[in-house]
Amino acid sequence: MTADRSGVGTVHLVGSGPGDPELLTLKARRLIDSADVVMHDALPGPEIIATIPEEAAEDVGKRANGERTPQSEIDDRIVAHAEAGREVVRLKGGDPTVFGRAGAELSTCIAAKIPVEVVPGVTSAIAGPALAGIPVTHRDHASSVTVVTGHEAPDADAPPIDWEALAQSGGTIVVLMGVGSLDEYTAALADGGLDPSTPVALIERASWPDQRAVTGTLETIVGVRDREGVEPPAVTVIGDVVEAIES
Amino acid sequence: MTADRSGVGTVHLVGSGPGDPELLTLKARRLIDSADVVMHDALPGPEIIATIPEEAAEDVGKRANGERTPQSEIDDRIVAHAEAGREVVRLKGGDPTVFGRAGAELSTCIAAKIPVEVVPGVTSAIAGPALAGIPVTHRDHASSVTVVTGHEAPDADAPPIDWEALAQSGGTIVVLMGVGSLDEYTAALADGGLDPSTPVALIERASWPDQRAVTGTLETIVGVRDREGVEPPAVTVIGDVVEAIES
Repeated sequence: MTADRSGVGTVHLVGSGPGDPELLTLKARRLIDSADVVMHDALPGPEIIATIPEEAAEDVGKRANGERTPQSEIDDRIVAHAEAGREVVRLKGGDPTVFGRAGAELSTCIAAKIPVEVVPGVTSAIAGPALAGIPVTHRDHASSVTVVTGHEAPDADAPPIDWEALAQSGGTIVVLMGVGSLDEYTAALADGGLDPSTPVALIERASWPDQRAVTGTLETIVGVRDREGVEPPAVTVIGDVVEAIES
Repeated sequence: MTADRSGVGTVHLVGSGPGDPELLTLKARRLIDSADVVMHDALPGPEIIATIPEEAAEDVGKRANGERTPQSEIDDRIVAHAEAGREVVRLKGGDPTVFGRAGAELSTCIAAKIPVEVVPGVTSAIAGPALAGIPVTHRDHASSVTVVTGHEAPDADAPPIDWEALAQSGGTIVVLMGVGSLDEYTAALADGGLDPSTPVALIERASWPDQRAVTGTLETIVGVRDREGVEPPAVTVIGDVVEAIES
């Protein structure tokens, strides 16, 4: 994943993990501390963003008008920084390749002949449940785990999520960015044949100082979310592993 | 996940990531460096094992006769160390909750009233592909990723992997510990209707200095493995994402 052009900076697509600064990798920490520019949005969370050296931090999450910065504009800025010889960290919440658009940014850099690498991070899809005492796999409860997004891009070309097939998988299902669409996919899973009494957990702000987990079933979790006022960011875990560990 | 018994040590179930010492989390590094005992097997890999302080390292991977140490014996040793007041790191390759038996060790500690926490790590299931230039999700190629093990415990109580449902999922499939059983599950996926031309990659020793990736299709990958002599540890990635990034 490296090109060979003198004077051009390297782009590092870096995962920041779920939000606790201690769950950054050593490599992420080193790159954040030494980069010329650290391009980030709000997803790494306030505690990690506070550790970015001030002179390097560049918030690309929102534009002045409050709208989300278009990916094409972020791509252009990544390329411009690297072409100017800067070492660039593109910091992503969780892991960059799990619904983090790393694919688009990798392709952009490769097309522009800019050296680029992915620095994997701890994904919230697995760490979120773990920090709430839920192992996503368990020899007595789940021999697979499927990670999906609750927020499918309407213009994406990937095949849509087949909730019916997922309902039949017998494994753990983890939904990222799935607070708002909880009604839809719990209904789709029930329609697909998943037992309405299947345990479900919502882990809000995993690894943040104010982490909170609430639990219910496929049938009750929407009511639990509403009653408890669960807000994004949160991870949804669906499956028997939610009750695997007695605490 | 904490109990309250003075004089008892805490058990930390710590993920070591795929093998590069720089992909340890800051928390894992701190705990390894300060623990009284670091119980490990061979899975964290030689580079990370070499960084464990010698006086703390305890290899629980194999017994003197070369057999794998039974889980019950490991459980007993974890409890004995903690009861003796020692801070215990149980170091796991990748992430402890992804086919790492964290569930069993969590339950053991909770039953023995020993304070225990999971410290998530970078999972090889996602990092392995990423380090070979393969994002496990991609807005134009895969809206889900399912992680399974190629080495199902014959005595496990979890429902067996439904390869037929997986073949229909339309998402990326990642198989851990799946070098030896590659023949069986590629055949099962083809029987389940997965296109024989679906791209497949094997990433051997992901993040280690001698990492290697080989690619083929669902139909050809067994021959590629044999010709190239791919050995464990390796991660198998199945899906269009294998060819998503032009390098």
